[in-house]
Amino acid sequence: MLTFFQYNWQVRDEWLQWCRQLSREELVKERAGGVKSFLYTFFHIIDVEYSWIRGIQEKEDIALEFTDDVTIEQLQALSDEARLEMEAFLRTSGNNTADAPVKVAWDEASYTKNEILHHVIAHEIHHIGQLSVWARELNLKPVSANVIGRKLY
Amino acid sequence: MLTFFQYNWQVRDEWLQWCRQLSREELVKERAGGVKSFLYTFFHIIDVEYSWIRGIQEKEDIALEFTDDVTIEQLQALSDEARLEMEAFLRTSGNNTADAPVKVAWDEASYTKNEILHHVIAHEIHHIGQLSVWARELNLKPVSANVIGRKLY
Repeated sequence: MLTFFQYNWQVRDEWLQWCRQLSREELVKERAGGVKSFLYTFFHIIDVEYSWIRGIQEKEDIALEFTDDVTIEQLQALSDEARLEMEAFLRTSGNNTADAPVKVAWDEASYTKNEILHHVIAHEIHHIGQLSVWARELNLKPVSANVIGRKLY
Repeated sequence: MLTFFQYNWQVRDEWLQWCRQLSREELVKERAGGVKSFLYTFFHIIDVEYSWIRGIQEKEDIALEFTDDVTIEQLQALSDEARLEMEAFLRTSGNNTADAPVKVAWDEASYTKNEILHHVIAHEIHHIGQLSVWARELNLKPVSANVIGRKLY
């Protein structure tokens, strides 16, 4: 599972770098499909991942707040900070609690840790797929989504 | 890893069902981002998955051919048939060969089995994310990408 997180983090970094070519207007412009804008998509991806990974650990949810004047640099810093905490957990957590039920504050149902890890991974890949359409609609080449060739191992 | 394949297959079935509401014209219309059209995307997803999973097994590549008059029913049948073969392999293959190098006919480089499984999984989720934008651009609600709540376990 860690490999998928490393893939997502690497692709996310490349997209944040990619976004530096866009004007402020293009970054915050609301588009069809996906979650609002380029900028909001990154915030949403980081927020969802961090919330669920903290939830698995029974840590209190940290409510992150989005504002339209957030910069790419601030999103990158937020991503880096959350990643440090999550990676330390993911590296040491092991599979022995994969089927343990997890209950979080923002959802009525209870899920297994394993189910949540799959959910968080697919969630980011899905939203990045949406960004790739928005990129092409701007006549720009999107970041590659390939896993092979990334040397994540 | 099998859970991700089951997720992808379930989501793909739901999207193929979803597509039945679209006219032939909308199904084959080339769109920005993604791979050509709704119909071609499914063909591409099935083709890529099947080729790589056969490649891992050192089976000969079966070149599938796309034609614009292919039906949803034919794509569903192709998907079902390939899935039967792949699922049997994925259920029995185990992790002991995860790092074994795999060489396929259509790529110069060599990859590990584990790398290829990650690649195939992310590949489909990425393209499905693109379909969700195209759906919203048609003012239609896309299939849910959520993993949680699907009872894949």
